Amino acid sequence: MIKKILIANRSEIAVRIIQTAREMNVQTVTIYSADDRASYYNRISDESVFIGEGSLSDTYLNIDKIIKAAKDSGADAIHPGYGFLAENADFAQACIDNNLIFIGPAPQAIRAMGNKVNARKLAERLGVPVLKGTTGDVKSILKEADNFEYPLIIKAAAGGGGKGMRIINSKNELPEALEAAGREAKSYFGDGTVYVEKYIAKPKHIEFQILGDMFGKLIHLNERECSIQRRYQKIIEESPSPSIDPRLRERMGKDALKLAGEINYYNAGTIEFLLDENGNYYFLEMNTRIQVEHPVTEFVTGADLIKHQILVASGEPLRIDFIEPKGHSIECRIYAENPLNNFSPSPGYINFIKFPHGAGVRNDAGIFEAAEIHPRYDPMISKLITYGENRNDAINKMIYALQNYAAHGIDTNIEYLLVILENNKFRKNEFYTDFCKTEETNLKEHMNKKRRVIEAEMLAAIYAANKLAAKDDVKNGKPIENEYNVWKIIGSL
Amino acid sequence: MIKKILIANRSEIAVRIIQTAREMNVQTVTIYSADDRASYYNRISDESVFIGEGSLSDTYLNIDKIIKAAKDSGADAIHPGYGFLAENADFAQACIDNNLIFIGPAPQAIRAMGNKVNARKLAERLGVPVLKGTTGDVKSILKEADNFEYPLIIKAAAGGGGKGMRIINSKNELPEALEAAGREAKSYFGDGTVYVEKYIAKPKHIEFQILGDMFGKLIHLNERECSIQRRYQKIIEESPSPSIDPRLRERMGKDALKLAGEINYYNAGTIEFLLDENGNYYFLEMNTRIQVEHPVTEFVTGADLIKHQILVASGEPLRIDFIEPKGHSIECRIYAENPLNNFSPSPGYINFIKFPHGAGVRNDAGIFEAAEIHPRYDPMISKLITYGENRNDAINKMIYALQNYAAHGIDTNIEYLLVILENNKFRKNEFYTDFCKTEETNLKEHMNKKRRVIEAEMLAAIYAANKLAAKDDVKNGKPIENEYNVWKIIGSL
Repeated sequence: MIKKILIANRSEIAVRIIQTAREMNVQTVTIYSADDRASYYNRISDESVFIGEGSLSDTYLNIDKIIKAAKDSGADAIHPGYGFLAENADFAQACIDNNLIFIGPAPQAIRAMGNKVNARKLAERLGVPVLKGTTGDVKSILKEADNFEYPLIIKAAAGGGGKGMRIINSKNELPEALEAAGREAKSYFGDGTVYVEKYIAKPKHIEFQILGDMFGKLIHLNERECSIQRRYQKIIEESPSPSIDPRLRERMGKDALKLAGEINYYNAGTIEFLLDENGNYYFLEMNTRIQVEHPVTEFVTGADLIKHQILVASGEPLRIDFIEPKGHSIECRIYAENPLNNFSPSPGYINFIKFPHGAGVRNDAGIFEAAEIHPRYDPMISKLITYGENRNDAINKMIYALQNYAAHGIDTNIEYLLVILENNKFRKNEFYTDFCKTEETNLKEHMNKKRRVIEAEMLAAIYAANKLAAKDDVKNGKPIENEYNVWKIIGSL
Repeated sequence: MIKKILIANRSEIAVRIIQTAREMNVQTVTIYSADDRASYYNRISDESVFIGEGSLSDTYLNIDKIIKAAKDSGADAIHPGYGFLAENADFAQACIDNNLIFIGPAPQAIRAMGNKVNARKLAERLGVPVLKGTTGDVKSILKEADNFEYPLIIKAAAGGGGKGMRIINSKNELPEALEAAGREAKSYFGDGTVYVEKYIAKPKHIEFQILGDMFGKLIHLNERECSIQRRYQKIIEESPSPSIDPRLRERMGKDALKLAGEINYYNAGTIEFLLDENGNYYFLEMNTRIQVEHPVTEFVTGADLIKHQILVASGEPLRIDFIEPKGHSIECRIYAENPLNNFSPSPGYINFIKFPHGAGVRNDAGIFEAAEIHPRYDPMISKLITYGENRNDAINKMIYALQNYAAHGIDTNIEYLLVILENNKFRKNEFYTDFCKTEETNLKEHMNKKRRVIEAEMLAAIYAANKLAAKDDVKNGKPIENEYNVWKIIGSL
């Protein structure tokens, strides 16, 4: 068994790994840059090693320094978390070359899936559906017209921002649309090369959690739906997906395992698919690491994914089998950002923070009390996860939890998450990966309204707190419920 | 459906009920005495009603005032929580008489189980095993010698403190022991009447969670083991019990349902048993309300018990069936008390509190931030509940959580709970209801040691905090890891 893990990461995921490592009586070593001297994760690890002043390349991305820190501290394994070096095959290889266990898949598996084009080719070869795409000049593409699936989307290969983009529904429309798109691409980008790909009008993001050991045992632990995204980043994830049924789960799960099995995958990984409205799915890519959103899987399966990562990396056989999902779990990523200003990060010092708690509420955070969200890193404050008997209950528990999440001093996306959860389309599962775009005006409007209410409530709270601070009044039993009611009234505006 | 619930309670269980009520879009009205003007549960309820200055009889036990508050606020139901009026049949009847739904069983059911002697008679009649006891003079008891189960314990009926107490293993020993016990009882208490009862050398406390609707559907949701008690109060509870197997669960569960069914029980309730080392169990009593320890059942079944209480009280059919327990859950009751001084309550103002969070950690609290634990009420600060794939994992998660629970300003039992969880007998399930007594010296010793460590750690933390407070040093990138390491070293003493 692994005895001492160096965590090549920081903040939330470092805390998460420390928690399970301590439960398993495994020692932990954390690394920190100057930015993280006072960070919580270093306080709760068994040892911490200073690795550099500032830049990422000098700290959390510096393979040599990290390997040295592991060797110096006597660690026998490295957990990369997510982000940073988690999907860097060279790093995984450097661990092995230095007699350190890399808590993740083999470097070959990381490489096989790291090249997204090759990964799709592999899927195609195995008969796992992919979104077929072809690039070339108009003539060469026209030759393949019979091989395409319709509807199609035509894009300028050199383009962006929707310029030269066309959606066509049948082969008949192709020649004219290709000519027009080619002309437009040429005039906008000076290059008439176009790219055609099967068009999914209303895509869902569905991903399967994979877990395998080094003896060939490979299971999936159901899917997660992560269709709510802003700026191409997931912000709300759930399991099970409201968009698939047990039969589709079985089919997609089988394909996910087929892909992972082909590259002899072990440890935790995730196979991502797009799902269209007719139940057709297409392999997107594989993430060869633990995901940010792994807690929703933990809630509906009861499994501790970090524990099984450590166990199988230790060379143990995988101790669990497929687990039917029970209940429903949702995760919201709480960010220091301003949703009203294109989600621009708003790092800074949080001078007051209280995480929500109660039945079915889990909070994974890199901070424990008032602390700085550092501008150099992802501005995530915490991951809030709820569990309910069904999707409605989980959503309602999340609304309650978000309403009881207090973080003051910086902008957060808490109200933004709230207006999504309160949105009827989200509730009724009438949302797709473009939800944050298509509902933008609506969401902003509701969020503004909510912010005004919260401001009023905070004013009232300050007013009430001042009154209550006169403790002697309370102790003497003088009735102060009038002021108290003022607060309630203002707060409910 | 119930639209507005008055919660005839305070603090933790009020918060718990509000959480689920809000999730169900049910309004809540809380009541408060002068002591609870600033209490968290009143801040998060929809309305709150002041009901009196101080004494319990004038506030939380005052049926007339509570009924009036419910009527005045337009509530259509009352949830009694646990404690206070939760098992008061007159209160349940008063609700009904005032057209208010009592969220609990029928008054008749409360009465039937409220009289513990009658409840045991009912169990005997149904063939559910009970701890048989007989009282009388020596002669009358001797006549029944053949009817007793051995071993027996003989006690002075008027006695206490172990005086006149004798354990005998067979019928042969009875005459002599009875004579001696009678003489001793006479000389100590002036009354020679004795009491004999089947003796359980090493009892376990096992209880079954019952849930029923008004249409006769009645299920159990597995057992909880609550053998760790101090001063006759449970402090650590878990589900499933490590002491019973599925076959015993089935037998005990059937008996629990037989008892509840006989009195047409509906809503939530708990049937308590003692279990001996040979797998024999004996009905103790029924609690006709939600229990403090209900969260461990929620974790292993995924069911929200408060939700089902509200649903069945609304006249809905019970929507769930028996759920096989998955994983393991443990609850620790965090009290403001001094375990080194006979667990005497230590209410007062908590000037700093941070609840633990993370994977598999749940915290149910009546307070949200620094607040007073009032001397008039049960000094519970919160209930900390963990979930793991198995008992070991749940224990380890609890140890981690307790170590990350910060409450300063008053004494707590956190270290005491920790030394129990770290005790090998607890880990190996070699403990019985007398654990806190038999292990007293051992636990105190370890706790003292732990307190000394924590004091050192706090001193170090204050030292480190002072250093870190010089923020400019940090910002300027001056290395302060030396001080930091000092803290780690002292902290690990």
